[in-house]
Amino acid sequence: MADRDGRGCCVIMAGGRGTRFWPLSRRQRPKQLLPLASDRSLLRETFERVAPLVGPQRVLVITSGDLAAPTAAELPELPAANVIAEPVGRNTAPCAVLGMGIAARLAPGQPVALLPADHLIPDDGVFREQLAAAFARADEAGGVVTFGIPPTRPETGYGYLEVGPPAEHAPDDLRPGVAFVEKPDRARAEQYLLDGCHLWNSGIFVWSAGAFARAVVTHIPDVVERLAPAIAAHGTAGFPAALESAYEDCPAESIDYAVMEKLPSFEVMEARYGWSDLGSWSAWGDLAPELPDAGRGMGQVVGLDSADNVVHAPDKLVALIGVRDLVVVDTGDALLICPRSSDQKVKEVLARLEADRREDLL
Amino acid sequence: MADRDGRGCCVIMAGGRGTRFWPLSRRQRPKQLLPLASDRSLLRETFERVAPLVGPQRVLVITSGDLAAPTAAELPELPAANVIAEPVGRNTAPCAVLGMGIAARLAPGQPVALLPADHLIPDDGVFREQLAAAFARADEAGGVVTFGIPPTRPETGYGYLEVGPPAEHAPDDLRPGVAFVEKPDRARAEQYLLDGCHLWNSGIFVWSAGAFARAVVTHIPDVVERLAPAIAAHGTAGFPAALESAYEDCPAESIDYAVMEKLPSFEVMEARYGWSDLGSWSAWGDLAPELPDAGRGMGQVVGLDSADNVVHAPDKLVALIGVRDLVVVDTGDALLICPRSSDQKVKEVLARLEADRREDLL
Repeated sequence: MADRDGRGCCVIMAGGRGTRFWPLSRRQRPKQLLPLASDRSLLRETFERVAPLVGPQRVLVITSGDLAAPTAAELPELPAANVIAEPVGRNTAPCAVLGMGIAARLAPGQPVALLPADHLIPDDGVFREQLAAAFARADEAGGVVTFGIPPTRPETGYGYLEVGPPAEHAPDDLRPGVAFVEKPDRARAEQYLLDGCHLWNSGIFVWSAGAFARAVVTHIPDVVERLAPAIAAHGTAGFPAALESAYEDCPAESIDYAVMEKLPSFEVMEARYGWSDLGSWSAWGDLAPELPDAGRGMGQVVGLDSADNVVHAPDKLVALIGVRDLVVVDTGDALLICPRSSDQKVKEVLARLEADRREDLL
Repeated sequence: MADRDGRGCCVIMAGGRGTRFWPLSRRQRPKQLLPLASDRSLLRETFERVAPLVGPQRVLVITSGDLAAPTAAELPELPAANVIAEPVGRNTAPCAVLGMGIAARLAPGQPVALLPADHLIPDDGVFREQLAAAFARADEAGGVVTFGIPPTRPETGYGYLEVGPPAEHAPDDLRPGVAFVEKPDRARAEQYLLDGCHLWNSGIFVWSAGAFARAVVTHIPDVVERLAPAIAAHGTAGFPAALESAYEDCPAESIDYAVMEKLPSFEVMEARYGWSDLGSWSAWGDLAPELPDAGRGMGQVVGLDSADNVVHAPDKLVALIGVRDLVVVDTGDALLICPRSSDQKVKEVLARLEADRREDLL
C-alpha cells in the first residue's frame, strides 16, 4: 500500500482546443493556456496543484504538436521529456494509453492519476489530500478510483457516476461505483440532483499500476499494440519518429466509451473541493469576481440597469446600460456579444472565420 | 431681391458637445468633428454643402473656446477670423446674435442662414437649391424662412412647425408658418404625422438682412446690447477681449424660446432633401450601411441569429450571436453596449465617468 504522501504520478491531458473561449482563446493559446481563474494559466494551476504531492519529475503533460512549445514554456520546472506532443489527435484513448504507459516507466509500480488541464479547482489543499487518498486506495485495491462531484444543478451537459452507499469502515468520501451514466435529459438530471447516488464525472481517474494496463489490454488491445513501441522509445532519440509512426494509423477511440464504461468495478471519491469545468464563458462568469450593477467578470465596467452579465475585457472601460445575461468578451482584435444561453454557439462563429480564412483570428 | 445663386452668407453653429455619441465622441472630438456619415466630419460636410453657394469667405463657424483649434483644422479654406470661439456657453441666443451680427458686417445687406453643424443631409445639390431659394425668398419678403422636414414617424423628440397651405402662385415647397410647436406627446405626434400641416423643425433658419436684427432688438435687447461691442470689434486685435467681456455676464437664453416662437410671421420651406439630426447611435444606425445578419453600422461583423443591431467598431471583428436591437460601439479604450431604446442614457455613463474623474474617457 502506498503512503498518502509523496507517491504516485500524474498525467495531465492538455491537448484541448477550448474553442468555447474565443475570442480570448486561439489555436496557439487554447483554454488551458489562458489565465482564466488567476494570473496563472489553468495548466499552470493544475501543475502547481499536483506537483507538491508527486514532484515535478512525476508530472507528464500530453498535448498536441503545435502546442508543445507554449505548453513547455508554461512549465519550465518540468523535464523536457515530460511534455509529450501527440502528432495528431486520435480521441482520448491513445492519449491515455500513451500517457499512462510512459508514467508506468517513469514511476514503476506507482498509482497514476489521469486528469484534465483545464478545470478550475480553487481548493488545492483539499484536492491534494483527496488525490493522495485516491492514490492509496487505488494502490491498495488494485483498481481505479474516479473523482465524482456532488451535483449542484440539474446539469445535462455532463456524464454522471452512479454510486452506492459507503462501505462500512470505509472513509465516507469513498463510494462504490455502480455505473457510468451518459449525459441525461432534464428530467433525469433533476432526479440525479436529489437522489444522492449520482455524482458528476469530473474526468479525473486514479489507477493502480496494474489495473490500467489490464483494462486497456482487454478492451483496446489494438491501441496498446500500436503505441507500445513509442512508449518503449520514450526518453530516446527515436521517440518522435516512433510516436509519429504509432499515431499514423492508430484507431481513434474514446477512453470513456471504450474502457471506462466497460469496467467490471470502480470506486468513486466524492470531491470535497470546489470544481468547475469552465465549459463556457457563462460557466466562467459564475465564478468570476463581481462587477457591481453589471454581473461578473474581469474589467472596468460601468453598469446602469444591468445585471447577470459576464464580461471579460481587461483592457478598456465597458459601459453596460440596460442589458442582462449577456456574454461580452473583448480582445484587441475581436469582440464577442451573445446571450449567456447561446455561448456554445461561439463554435459557429469560428466555423465562419475558418471559411473566411481569417487565420489571424483563429 | 437676391439672385438664387452666389448670394447670402452662412453661420454654422458648431459648439455642440454631442455626448450621445460617446465613446466615439469626446470633449475634444464632439459629434460635429466625427466622420459619422462618410470619411469627412459632419462639420466638414456641412461646410462643403454650403460653400459652393456662398463661397468660403462667407461661411462663419461659431464654436466653443476649447474646440477652436480642431474646428479650424477641419476647415483650412476658411479665413481664420471666420472661426469664432464663444468664451463660455450661454445657450443659443448669444451665439446666434454674435454670428448673425458678424455675418451682417461680412456681407452687408445679404440674407443669412443659421444652421447646425452636426446634421446629416445626403442630398447636397437639392439642399443648395432650396437654400438659394430661401435666401431669395427671405430677401424678397424681408422676413425669415425656416426649413421644415416632412415627418416620417411620430417623433416626440423634435419641435414641429405648423404650416398653412401654399399660397397661390408661390412655389409649392414654400408654406406660410402658423406656429412653432413644442415637442408633442405621442398622440399628437401621430396626428402631426398624418395631418399634412406639421413639419419637423430642423433648426435651419434663413433671415433677411434686416429681419433678424429687428427681431432680436425687439425680444432680447439685453443680449444685443451686451454683444454689440464684440461684434463691432470683429476683425481687430481687440476682438477676443471684447468677446470675453461681452459673454462674462451675458444672459443665457434660447433663440427658439426667446425669439423664434414670438415671431409675428414666418415662412417654411418644406425640405426636398434627406435629413437626419443623427440624434443618437440608434438614429445613426438607421442610415448606416447594412451589416448582413447583424443590423447596420461600420465594422467587420459576423452575425448569427442577430438583427437590427447598430454597430460602430471599425478596428476589430465583432461576433454577434442571438442579439437584437443593441447598440455596440467600440473604441480602443471603451466599449458601449445598450439596447437601442436606451441609447440616450449614455449621458448617465458620462456623469459617472466625470464623478470618477476619468478625464481620459470624457
